Amino acid sequence: MPELRKDPITGLWVIISTDRRKRPGEFRREPVRPMAAGEFCPFDAGHESATRPEILAYRNGSAPNAPGWNLRVVPNMFPALQVEGGLDRVGEGMFDKMNGVGAHEVIIETPNHGETIATMKEEAVERVVTAYRDRLLDLRQDRRFRYIVVFKNVGAAAGATLDHSHSQLVALPVVPRQVRDEVDGAARHFAEKERCVFCDIVRQEMADGTRVIAENGDMIALAPYAPRFPFETWLVPKRHGARFEEAPRHEYGALARLLRDVLRRMRRMLDHPAYNMVVNNSPFGEQVEDYYHWHIEIMPRLTRIAGFEYGSGFYINPVLPEEAARVLRNARVDESVKL
Amino acid sequence: MPELRKDPITGLWVIISTDRRKRPGEFRREPVRPMAAGEFCPFDAGHESATRPEILAYRNGSAPNAPGWNLRVVPNMFPALQVEGGLDRVGEGMFDKMNGVGAHEVIIETPNHGETIATMKEEAVERVVTAYRDRLLDLRQDRRFRYIVVFKNVGAAAGATLDHSHSQLVALPVVPRQVRDEVDGAARHFAEKERCVFCDIVRQEMADGTRVIAENGDMIALAPYAPRFPFETWLVPKRHGARFEEAPRHEYGALARLLRDVLRRMRRMLDHPAYNMVVNNSPFGEQVEDYYHWHIEIMPRLTRIAGFEYGSGFYINPVLPEEAARVLRNARVDESVKL
Repeated sequence: MPELRKDPITGLWVIISTDRRKRPGEFRREPVRPMAAGEFCPFDAGHESATRPEILAYRNGSAPNAPGWNLRVVPNMFPALQVEGGLDRVGEGMFDKMNGVGAHEVIIETPNHGETIATMKEEAVERVVTAYRDRLLDLRQDRRFRYIVVFKNVGAAAGATLDHSHSQLVALPVVPRQVRDEVDGAARHFAEKERCVFCDIVRQEMADGTRVIAENGDMIALAPYAPRFPFETWLVPKRHGARFEEAPRHEYGALARLLRDVLRRMRRMLDHPAYNMVVNNSPFGEQVEDYYHWHIEIMPRLTRIAGFEYGSGFYINPVLPEEAARVLRNARVDESVKL
Repeated sequence: MPELRKDPITGLWVIISTDRRKRPGEFRREPVRPMAAGEFCPFDAGHESATRPEILAYRNGSAPNAPGWNLRVVPNMFPALQVEGGLDRVGEGMFDKMNGVGAHEVIIETPNHGETIATMKEEAVERVVTAYRDRLLDLRQDRRFRYIVVFKNVGAAAGATLDHSHSQLVALPVVPRQVRDEVDGAARHFAEKERCVFCDIVRQEMADGTRVIAENGDMIALAPYAPRFPFETWLVPKRHGARFEEAPRHEYGALARLLRDVLRRMRRMLDHPAYNMVVNNSPFGEQVEDYYHWHIEIMPRLTRIAGFEYGSGFYINPVLPEEAARVLRNARVDESVKL
């Protein structure tokens, strides 16, 4: 029997319909394909002039926009938003618009083409999440921005156009809908119970265990109770904290270790899947410290989103989260395993 | 300069970023591909035994589940939900679930493989929208259901697994998120102005003209002011009406003519695009007659949804709706044009 499950934060219902797994073509896999030999990658070491000038780089003393770096942050070559100018809010009859002011940056996670979060050293992954923090701390000083979406697309099925390991961020003058829904849902839970809903979830999941994928001292990886996507995975700090960029330093190390571990599990068990990853964080300029709780969501792209999902905002997921968690929890991914 | 535009119904902001059209690979086209020769189609005339027994058929006197039909409605062979049983709502600690009770049906729009809404006769298209009405009127008598999503996926990029022209419906025991957002937004507009927000939009768009694609006496096709997708098109009745299934008979004829016309325009100008179509309708058992207004949304699938959209619920659209409307409005699609 299929189930309808309700996300305890947003109230969103999803259909968990395991029978549909049998459907021909439903569980399509589009594994990540490496770049063709001889193709030019603008993110490789030595190709620094192929990007716009760097905003941030972690280097050992070398000159800006030259080789000798571990990580670079550059403006997106095809930005969705423009960083200069005011918002200039205007009406057009009953309609409202403003200038598309914002920042759109690319975090080049490694100089080495072919390396991924799953295969990098832990210290390299920690550099990536530290770069997220550094850019958030810098950009949130700009009072035009209300929220920054930090995300990562891997594989063409997830919308990536380059296979060199990278993340992106988009700073926005408005709070996106899904963030609004989560923050408002967490506020309702707090108003009723005076507890953080994410802390409640972590507590119940640690006691229950069936949806736990992996954990360390500071962080836990869970299959959420009402996942929209097969093998959807959340990485949540065990200790309450509203803002990613204000986490204690040791949490970035713990996050890096757990993120690498989870992506190794997915790579091994899901055949190098395309995925999207996003940091869910507190909006700027809102007092959400008591009830919002930053976390990371990873969404492997194993099924296509079709008309039903678009038209309804209602997701059909063919895999039980307890089953997804069991598969990923039992994966052998120690360093001796070839990925 | 990119723009941020706000949907006047839901309050959702979208980025209209025409500069990004230049981006390599951004504007991918995956046109609909016909079935390979010799492949078996369960929806063709003569293959009635390959589907589950029909729920509804428009026939000229022939026997059920035999040839001689113009349109058939059958249960989906791989249903997302199960039609038998009670909801059995239960809690699991802090979590909530219920049985996945619902209906999942397929509307086989024509016995002729290769025909589409764009190439059918108008009377055949009217049969399709009449079948939507007939199934809504029947299923809404089942008090377990709160909403029925009527939708259509065309092309693999839109999630279709069969290329024989068909629609689907899913009857749900909960109101989907996007429907809730629209209904609540329309309620807020009505509370403030005592007017239907959709009637206001139709009035402003008819006066303005720049986003009008086509119209007839009863119906208008518009590019919405804040579209999530390039060439997104809404078909809206000019006269206020909350419930699709209670529309006056002449509106189904007008809808059929306009739907066929718009899909001919898309087919000609967008190279036979994959698309999703969805009927946005009033939830059952709610008094929304004054302020909700049924309509149809068509979303061509010309771009991939990537991590940014998933993580934020914030859409980036590379095509101005005024430009999309101009292209579709100026398309020559009279019957002499070969599609």
